[in-house]
Amino acid sequence: MELIIGPRLYSTWSLRPWLVLKRCKADFTVREIDIYSPAGQAELERISPSRLVPLLNVDGETVWDSMAISVWCAERYPEAKLWPSDAHARWLARSAACEMHGGFMALRTACSMGPDHTMVGPDRSPPPKGEAVDRDIRRIVELWKQMRGRFGAGGPYLFGEWSVPDAFFTPVATRFRHFQVDLAAQGDDGTAAAYRDALLAQPDFLEWSAEALR
Amino acid sequence: MELIIGPRLYSTWSLRPWLVLKRCKADFTVREIDIYSPAGQAELERISPSRLVPLLNVDGETVWDSMAISVWCAERYPEAKLWPSDAHARWLARSAACEMHGGFMALRTACSMGPDHTMVGPDRSPPPKGEAVDRDIRRIVELWKQMRGRFGAGGPYLFGEWSVPDAFFTPVATRFRHFQVDLAAQGDDGTAAAYRDALLAQPDFLEWSAEALR
Repeated sequence: MELIIGPRLYSTWSLRPWLVLKRCKADFTVREIDIYSPAGQAELERISPSRLVPLLNVDGETVWDSMAISVWCAERYPEAKLWPSDAHARWLARSAACEMHGGFMALRTACSMGPDHTMVGPDRSPPPKGEAVDRDIRRIVELWKQMRGRFGAGGPYLFGEWSVPDAFFTPVATRFRHFQVDLAAQGDDGTAAAYRDALLAQPDFLEWSAEALR
Repeated sequence: MELIIGPRLYSTWSLRPWLVLKRCKADFTVREIDIYSPAGQAELERISPSRLVPLLNVDGETVWDSMAISVWCAERYPEAKLWPSDAHARWLARSAACEMHGGFMALRTACSMGPDHTMVGPDRSPPPKGEAVDRDIRRIVELWKQMRGRFGAGGPYLFGEWSVPDAFFTPVATRFRHFQVDLAAQGDDGTAAAYRDALLAQPDFLEWSAEALR
């Protein structure tokens, strides 16, 4: 089984299924493609149906898209409990992860990752400005507070124990860190900041960060 | 159980879970909110965690996001076979639906639905122009040809029998029709056009169209 990813320094979409596969203790190799180079673009054109990363090569098949790979993992590794076992928590965990998968365009544009803005590097950029990005941040703060308040008793993650939405929000946490986003200014009472820090301190993410900086 | 949607004439995100719920023969009511009016915006602000449609109110919970609602349906109505039963087809069906859920921004921007561009109306708009939108259309044509060629033997839909990706691509079919997109110019041999027409002739979509025009 092989996971094909973009540069560990800044491929937010790649980080998500990597975290999920690690959580499953899956036996997998990683191929990192420099999607910003002509050679990397040519390789992507050759191997990726969507011309995007990530991809999972498994059982003779190429599964693409970070959410589809995560759901594949949940099917293959039920013992990893990638979604909350409580039904209501599970429904909302899917809603939260899917909202991230399909939305928050203003935040993703204003706090875009790339060669100059990495998920792990020490450099920091000034906070984004604008009503659209503020609205996205307010919504994320509100969502995090609600889910942590209702389901967070069992652990430091969005639904207590680590689950798929945490994979999807880890890149958001890196954006908040790199772009020095003031969560309190968007309604945070400390809950969202603590959750952000829990994601950034999660052992698998620290392993990804160390590999990215090597 | 209540599904909250935007205007049937042009809310592409709303159409998806409505089609899925119909496929499940679910017993549900529909509340349509005019998201372009101040009153509709105020209502959305009050009832929608994400300030978006669609929403599903069920068992005292609000499930949001078109994909999360679809997955909720697959869990609640296993007899509806919302995903292909063949494992490989299922993995790729999820990839295809998720690729649509999170991508094709150029197409969605250039062929945007709204009060002047409806999914069902008789008016037609000139085709979109530009390399980015052409690339999206080429990719969709390629994906549809591949999946129909490999899995389409059992029926007219993407994986033969109707499944979740068909819900996600029905709004795309309406964009192709309304904006008069020339699929052959983007590599179609007739397969993609036939699939588009199958989606537009699907009985549940015709029911949605009739209600939208009422």
